[in-house]
Amino acid sequence: MAARYNGNEVRLCKVEGEYHWHQHDDTDELFLVIEGELDMEFRDHTERMVQGDLIIVPRGTEHRPCARKGEVKLFVMDADGTPNTGDEATAFKPIEI
Amino acid sequence: MAARYNGNEVRLCKVEGEYHWHQHDDTDELFLVIEGELDMEFRDHTERMVQGDLIIVPRGTEHRPCARKGEVKLFVMDADGTPNTGDEATAFKPIEI
Repeated sequence: MAARYNGNEVRLCKVEGEYHWHQHDDTDELFLVIEGELDMEFRDHTERMVQGDLIIVPRGTEHRPCARKGEVKLFVMDADGTPNTGDEATAFKPIEI
Repeated sequence: MAARYNGNEVRLCKVEGEYHWHQHDDTDELFLVIEGELDMEFRDHTERMVQGDLIIVPRGTEHRPCARKGEVKLFVMDADGTPNTGDEATAFKPIEI
């Protein structure tokens, strides 16, 4: 599911497993956990996120979302037209809930 | 709790009871239910929202969030500096989680 908000794209998606390291140079990225447990890894530390936890990854900051304990339902927002990986060539489409 | 995302203000708040009719002329407003049940009333219909449900209220659209079945944990986003009611004089501060 995707929607638009003030020039940003909103997605509700399910994720599972390890994503890869990436960054978005032109947009902050917002993650909110709706269900499950997510490790948001940064180069110098990891934030363990559970239901209701919110992280805003500032633009230009490397990060890696990892869902190692099964499926996680996630609310994600970034600027319109941002590929998931920050790179059009390696972007993927999230699974819809 | 409040944070900033791409020029928008993000709030995680608890609400209870009926809010009043209002609109924001200069910003869309995003609501995501983290826990509980919320009736989002519009002039012509009502959307019942439960965990994981998302509504983006377009700018200029009258709405009234009502939590009639106890406390609701809510993620809310609108443009930086928007009073909750769209009117500085009647704005209130949300309770922090």
